[in-house]
Amino acid sequence: MRVRKRKGAEELLAENPQIVVANPEELKGKWQQRFAKKQPIHIEIGMGKGQFITGMAKAHPDINYIGIDMQVSVVSFALDKVLADTLPNVQLLHVDGSALTNYFADGEVDQIYLNFSDPWPKTRHEKRRLTSKDFLAVDEQILCNEGEIHFKTDNRGLFEYSLASFSQYGMIIKQVWLDLHASAEATNNVMTEYEEKFSAKGQPIYRVEAVFPKK
Amino acid sequence: MRVRKRKGAEELLAENPQIVVANPEELKGKWQQRFAKKQPIHIEIGMGKGQFITGMAKAHPDINYIGIDMQVSVVSFALDKVLADTLPNVQLLHVDGSALTNYFADGEVDQIYLNFSDPWPKTRHEKRRLTSKDFLAVDEQILCNEGEIHFKTDNRGLFEYSLASFSQYGMIIKQVWLDLHASAEATNNVMTEYEEKFSAKGQPIYRVEAVFPKK
Repeated sequence: MRVRKRKGAEELLAENPQIVVANPEELKGKWQQRFAKKQPIHIEIGMGKGQFITGMAKAHPDINYIGIDMQVSVVSFALDKVLADTLPNVQLLHVDGSALTNYFADGEVDQIYLNFSDPWPKTRHEKRRLTSKDFLAVDEQILCNEGEIHFKTDNRGLFEYSLASFSQYGMIIKQVWLDLHASAEATNNVMTEYEEKFSAKGQPIYRVEAVFPKK
Repeated sequence: MRVRKRKGAEELLAENPQIVVANPEELKGKWQQRFAKKQPIHIEIGMGKGQFITGMAKAHPDINYIGIDMQVSVVSFALDKVLADTLPNVQLLHVDGSALTNYFADGEVDQIYLNFSDPWPKTRHEKRRLTSKDFLAVDEQILCNEGEIHFKTDNRGLFEYSLASFSQYGMIIKQVWLDLHASAEATNNVMTEYEEKFSAKGQPIYRVEAVFPKK
């Protein structure tokens, strides 16, 4: 997600170290310490302005959520939402999604969400797609045994690519939706900002749940 | 494909045993004898009126095609097309797709096409879908090592189901198209009668190529 630079965003993050982790390397293997309750950890890689992660946190108080984004302005908007709702089960992480093994121990994460990731449509940029092989290897490492990725997008090319990429990596496709908002599951679906805008235009939203093989 | 009964269809089939196999059990393991050249065998299960199988046969003279359908009227319309074009690389088989191990030896088939198969949308009819587990087991048996199924449909529910079914069976998704006619591959795509009608209405055509694991 590309967002305008927000003045004072860095300061806002620095002023809220109880929510935006300041030294994430030190938390590797110890994330449960940051939450009120010890319960499964779900992370969103590329959380954007945080509507999804905070919406999920409200809907599922029995899960600990960590929203991750590399853009400081984006994280600051997510921070606004966490502060407004005083959610005990959300932490924010301002790091690059490609280096997650620096911040999470092997098997520390129970589920990964990818929402409307950058499609990088050019073939020569394939390696930048969050559903490409090298990213999946990182995801597999930090996920628990038979961990899952739940991915949604409106980008047809990225979704076509991702289904094949998951399968060729050895993941099993648990379930697929080719028009999420037309399905029964839509009632439980927490929308991202982007999803609200694009589904309102009638574009289908694609979704998949895929599982890594047994470790 | 449901088709009106055609008067004289049975007679037409009986009059053309050089194309419509009369005793298919006897050909098990010996299909190459029925063709002018020994070359890979591709079959279509549920061929409808035969536009796809005859179109493919014209486009790919280096492949032997067998079109299969259980409805006599449907097979008779396909027969019309084979006769009109005098195609040396097409045979027709008037049998039930669920009993294919009676007509093909293990590994005798090189590729399977499923086009616009009956969606059987009710959960209690899942076992009738041609992409369900038991049908895949039959397909795997008659296919060569790492054989492929190429499947297209306009039915969203059936396609969602099939992607998960293929993957859960252990097949690898090679490639997916979520709007075939909008893709570059559309130029080589041989359309079925049904596909022509429905894609003209602007409905997306879904397509997948899936591979069975090594035997």
